[in-house]
Amino acid sequence: MRPFDLPLGYKYATAYAGIRKEQKDDLALIVSTVPAAAAALFTTNRVQAAPVKLAKANIRLSKGVCGAVLVNAGNANCATKSGEKVAGNTTKALAKLLKLPPNQVLPASTGVIGVELDENKILDKLPELVERLADNSLPDVARAILTTDLQPKGASREVTLRRGTVRIAGVTKGSGMIHPRMATTLAFVMTDAVIPQTLLRRMLVRAGELSYNRISVDGDTSTNDTLIVMANGASGVRPDPKEMSVFEEALTETLQSLARQIVRDGEGARKLVSVEVHGAATDAAAATIARAISNSPLVKTAIAGSDPNWGRILSAAGSSGVNFDPSTVDITLQDVRVCRAGLASPFDEQDMKLRLDDTDVSIVFRIASKTKGSATFWTCDLTEDYIHINASYRT
Amino acid sequence: MRPFDLPLGYKYATAYAGIRKEQKDDLALIVSTVPAAAAALFTTNRVQAAPVKLAKANIRLSKGVCGAVLVNAGNANCATKSGEKVAGNTTKALAKLLKLPPNQVLPASTGVIGVELDENKILDKLPELVERLADNSLPDVARAILTTDLQPKGASREVTLRRGTVRIAGVTKGSGMIHPRMATTLAFVMTDAVIPQTLLRRMLVRAGELSYNRISVDGDTSTNDTLIVMANGASGVRPDPKEMSVFEEALTETLQSLARQIVRDGEGARKLVSVEVHGAATDAAAATIARAISNSPLVKTAIAGSDPNWGRILSAAGSSGVNFDPSTVDITLQDVRVCRAGLASPFDEQDMKLRLDDTDVSIVFRIASKTKGSATFWTCDLTEDYIHINASYRT
Repeated sequence: MRPFDLPLGYKYATAYAGIRKEQKDDLALIVSTVPAAAAALFTTNRVQAAPVKLAKANIRLSKGVCGAVLVNAGNANCATKSGEKVAGNTTKALAKLLKLPPNQVLPASTGVIGVELDENKILDKLPELVERLADNSLPDVARAILTTDLQPKGASREVTLRRGTVRIAGVTKGSGMIHPRMATTLAFVMTDAVIPQTLLRRMLVRAGELSYNRISVDGDTSTNDTLIVMANGASGVRPDPKEMSVFEEALTETLQSLARQIVRDGEGARKLVSVEVHGAATDAAAATIARAISNSPLVKTAIAGSDPNWGRILSAAGSSGVNFDPSTVDITLQDVRVCRAGLASPFDEQDMKLRLDDTDVSIVFRIASKTKGSATFWTCDLTEDYIHINASYRT
Repeated sequence: MRPFDLPLGYKYATAYAGIRKEQKDDLALIVSTVPAAAAALFTTNRVQAAPVKLAKANIRLSKGVCGAVLVNAGNANCATKSGEKVAGNTTKALAKLLKLPPNQVLPASTGVIGVELDENKILDKLPELVERLADNSLPDVARAILTTDLQPKGASREVTLRRGTVRIAGVTKGSGMIHPRMATTLAFVMTDAVIPQTLLRRMLVRAGELSYNRISVDGDTSTNDTLIVMANGASGVRPDPKEMSVFEEALTETLQSLARQIVRDGEGARKLVSVEVHGAATDAAAATIARAISNSPLVKTAIAGSDPNWGRILSAAGSSGVNFDPSTVDITLQDVRVCRAGLASPFDEQDMKLRLDDTDVSIVFRIASKTKGSATFWTCDLTEDYIHINASYRT
């Protein structure tokens, strides 16, 4: 992310507030210099952290107008007595400093569940954070929101429209999809395009479906998952009605890039696996099959071991609940067909082993039919390191 | 299983037919000396092996009468060109030797998918198998049907009824729930009680729901899963109508014992974890929550690491799709309450670590409510060994 790629009219700052033990920034602030249209997706988990509840309420009360996002890592502010008070007091204090209505500040948290978050640690740092706001500090935000992630994750796009250029940039974190002691999916995406809020919300639902809803690290959702998109219009460029789909495509690509980075950096992951399904009755049916393949621990361990075990792929698809005729299925691994019409198709084992040692693995599951439902999912291999990371957290 | 515990009127034999490489019996025969009422549960996977299809058809055609079960390990006879021919020819040849109608023979297979099974290996061994039939060889059957399982698995019960005693005995295999190169769930349960077929079927559906449908090793189903129950009436004792529930309870306990043995011997498992849910709206809702907890890789790795990470349990329940108020939830681990009303409840970390090092782990998830829906699931911990076993199959 070079600064000149960044959307206009946003400022960023980070600080170390002592929430996590390691001395590494754990507080991040994103401010739009003009009120932005905002839309958000939140976890569907029945257990929702205090910042998720407050962000939901604020975005509803403000009718989708957002001036700032306040994020902390190191503590999920979930399943604690003071959770709602902490989320409320810290966002209100920030709103006062920024002279914003309190409901135009959205909170997000990630980290350990069930441990009280000391609001003073955040309150004490807010003035410094506001003072440090700068338009090129988005990479610092990408680092400050990480938990067990190994790599900061960012993506950006420029879209040239008839009336000028607009920019999209986002940062995200993931690791395990759920990981109550130290993880969650967070994503913050900014654009300087002029996009009406209702349209932005519809775009986000569709783009989220094709990106964050199409990845699997361990098949779970967290109590804190939050994805916020802001459009502040600072470019002065409003896509004309025919160009809205061009903008939406760029937004979708940005979210897909961020989502794929989460999978590639999944806990213990060594390989990014794309799972394409074609020939299902509908796109939704294709997505259900792709999800079943992506979530199968047996498929994921086979990929870790570079084992072309297509029987596991066929069987995972068969357990998805979607109706298909197994005798019409072709499966391709790394561009080599290993299953034809539901039966073994001969291949060179040595060659296939080498192909599967790649860090990028492609699975294509094709049903020979007249229907054209298709979907792509991204997942990672399941390695011993996933177990190490998740078994030995408190020991 | 002592011979005198075994149901009357059954004979067993095993042989090595060279289907698996290792020289270990891979062919098993169970014969009822009088035609038995039979009921069966099969995989719900869309991809079904040839023996599953044939066993389904035979049990329908024979109206639930069964004289023999022919099982092989080492090859699933699934996703191959000759699958249906092999299952048909081998069961027909056995029926001829035993002088049974062909549809009274039920086949079952487990092992590698997508590799042709040579029917001659089985056909050549059938005469020897029939000759060897003996009434005390059920333990040999328990061993011959294993694949990656480490332990043979059997269970038996005697039920004393007003008119006399009846016996139930069963053997099973599992390992990974699905494991197309070398696994599947198979179970064969025999009783000498007099039970009408329609009643037997209804009992099996209920008992299966409370046992085999309540376990999770890796959350998947195989193409070959088969559970057959036979009631040959050789004891001459028919439970009177009021005693049928006593018999059903013994059948359920037998199936639960077998199912728990599968979990305890799950691939790489070191711990058997029971997950009890109480206070849900219905038993079905409780089962859905228990299943979500049992299937969560994060819960299972935490148990492997003796980590009392109750946040993962609460979060897994929250992602189950069942509505509940998190602030009404108590969670007990090894008899110690770690979460009260959705919040952390203090406990001694050292003591808890020691308790969780046990090979039997109990999770109780209790919703404070007026409803009484409850369910118990059994799962295992997820260890590095699971990955080793499943990643390095062909390498």
